[in-house]
Amino acid sequence: MAEKRYLMTPGPTPVPPEVLAAMAQPIVHHRSPDFKPIYAQCLERLKEVYRTEGDVLLFTASGTAGLESVIGNLCSPGERIVVVSAGYFGERWADIAAAYGCEVDHLRYEWGEAPSADDLGGRLAEIGGATAVLVTHSETSTGVVADVRAHAGVAKEAGALVAVDAISSLGAIPCETDAWSLDAVVSGSQKALMTPPGLSTVSVSGPAWEARKEARAPRFYLDWERTREAQVQLDAAFTPAVSIVIGLNVALRLLLERGLDAVFEHHIRLGRACRAGVRALGLEPFSPDDDSSAVVTTVRVPEPVDGTQFLLDLRDRLGITLAPGQGPLKGKVFRIGHIGYFDVFDITTALAGIELSLAEAGADIERGVAVTRALEMYERTPA
Amino acid sequence: MAEKRYLMTPGPTPVPPEVLAAMAQPIVHHRSPDFKPIYAQCLERLKEVYRTEGDVLLFTASGTAGLESVIGNLCSPGERIVVVSAGYFGERWADIAAAYGCEVDHLRYEWGEAPSADDLGGRLAEIGGATAVLVTHSETSTGVVADVRAHAGVAKEAGALVAVDAISSLGAIPCETDAWSLDAVVSGSQKALMTPPGLSTVSVSGPAWEARKEARAPRFYLDWERTREAQVQLDAAFTPAVSIVIGLNVALRLLLERGLDAVFEHHIRLGRACRAGVRALGLEPFSPDDDSSAVVTTVRVPEPVDGTQFLLDLRDRLGITLAPGQGPLKGKVFRIGHIGYFDVFDITTALAGIELSLAEAGADIERGVAVTRALEMYERTPA
Repeated sequence: MAEKRYLMTPGPTPVPPEVLAAMAQPIVHHRSPDFKPIYAQCLERLKEVYRTEGDVLLFTASGTAGLESVIGNLCSPGERIVVVSAGYFGERWADIAAAYGCEVDHLRYEWGEAPSADDLGGRLAEIGGATAVLVTHSETSTGVVADVRAHAGVAKEAGALVAVDAISSLGAIPCETDAWSLDAVVSGSQKALMTPPGLSTVSVSGPAWEARKEARAPRFYLDWERTREAQVQLDAAFTPAVSIVIGLNVALRLLLERGLDAVFEHHIRLGRACRAGVRALGLEPFSPDDDSSAVVTTVRVPEPVDGTQFLLDLRDRLGITLAPGQGPLKGKVFRIGHIGYFDVFDITTALAGIELSLAEAGADIERGVAVTRALEMYERTPA
Repeated sequence: MAEKRYLMTPGPTPVPPEVLAAMAQPIVHHRSPDFKPIYAQCLERLKEVYRTEGDVLLFTASGTAGLESVIGNLCSPGERIVVVSAGYFGERWADIAAAYGCEVDHLRYEWGEAPSADDLGGRLAEIGGATAVLVTHSETSTGVVADVRAHAGVAKEAGALVAVDAISSLGAIPCETDAWSLDAVVSGSQKALMTPPGLSTVSVSGPAWEARKEARAPRFYLDWERTREAQVQLDAAFTPAVSIVIGLNVALRLLLERGLDAVFEHHIRLGRACRAGVRALGLEPFSPDDDSSAVVTTVRVPEPVDGTQFLLDLRDRLGITLAPGQGPLKGKVFRIGHIGYFDVFDITTALAGIELSLAEAGADIERGVAVTRALEMYERTPA
């Protein structure tokens, strides 16, 4: 077993030591003045990261529960919902909507394809509109980032609400909640927000609050209004994951101190460095070979390597955890995350490990150049 | 502001340093071999604490979501549910069932009363049975512990399923999931399980699994079957709160190493010590003055003290956080928690602070005896 561990997945992502230290303090009571100022600050910082003047609700739950809250608060059984999907997490939107009895109109792409706003416009025209359109911003399973702004424009024009799975995109790449008129944007603590998993965040627009009044699905824990009313009083509706909120508050400070735009630029540069290294190894990126791939770089497993065995070797012998392919991509690709608390030496470490392990597994790998190329690419890109 | 902080609420409760330290380790991936053995161990230990051979499901959520999962997985709109309530958390059961469209038959007691299994039997006979009976084991708002075993016996005899809110009782006082034939027992990480809030646990019996197949409420995140299927593979259905699971695993080890029965005895002794001190101060316990009050001691605020001001003074000047009264008891009682990581000197600290603050607020308080009486009571009770 390797002595040091390198977590290089697109979520959970590594947590900065300041965040871990804040979470290791003795626990405080969520309804006491020890917690309320932190809670208030965290909620304000979230709005800044979301770039919204509206409400951002905080739930103690995985990101999927945030997605479910969108369906439960916006949609009623039998209503038509358009799901735009091109991978594992797009399918999840569809599964939740189906579980709630919605009539799901599924605009489904091949895994790895980028959804097109024109297609959405055509589909909406064809079916005569929908209650809501559900989009995945960064499809973590493939590395493809959808043009949410364009999709939202088309959907709003057709009179539909727009909800976005931004679980791996918020704080990683631009996501303009208000400027793009997004009605609900769902994220999670464990991706670009550099905090352990356990919190889901959901922004809610004015039109979404209106729609909520008519939605008939049963809901209690994930009811938006109950959580908003409590948050206004800084009195969480239910005992929140106090330590994770405290951690998130520190992480959001780090993120905002650096500046959102600088953070986005950093992720683009890490993506460029990663792709330069991957190409230098002679490997083929599966995610787009352009700056849209700022969240996660997906790479095809080369012949004759067993993709599952390769990741186990990396992890057990070299201490490097990468993410496997999901669904139809299982065993065919591996994924290198680079959002959140990552720097270029995390990328070079990943590349060095990949180089060694793949070469030993018999793949035709170019040796000794990937790390240098990655660093060069990172250095020559302006900050 | 006081320098040291003493958290003496019945949840969140203080977290042992070993648990905090485990949670401060760098984050690991939930689908990697770094996490799976911990996850497996945690699930096994939970079964031991629940005293069940059946399934215990682990949700990243507050305890309320665990309660909601019971309604969502067991009940359909229009079905009759009997809720036995005698305080704030009993009301929550009723609110959730109503939100799901159940026909709620509410066996409601005054806050502070102990529910009677005979009353339940009478009610069930009168209304001709019910799909499920929902009971609160330890009503944290009053300090009253219901006789869940007797209630379960009566309910099962009438052919109803029995679900128990054991959020503040599991690991605090005996809760025999299998021996008492409890169909669903809900708990949370942040009470007697000595872990930060963020996880809810739910045991599910064979009959409950059968009933789930017929239940028609929409559910996704809280669907029991989805979580069971994933847990069997040690592959959480959704990204769990990894750090809290790691913390819970350590806390459960501490609890089981001491032994459940020894832990229960410890809580009884702390309750005795607390009540002896409270009486020595000349105060009147609101919770029963007997060994059933092992979770939280509820005390009437004496004249002429303002209950809210008193708790703020304790907190801001002396560093001691107690819990206020809830609902109709707001301002009228205060609550001293003593489950989880508490010893007798936590009790004497609370008593010493209460003595000082209440005396200064003009209450007729017996000075200089409470700490000694509490310690004497603790010492003379056999372990």
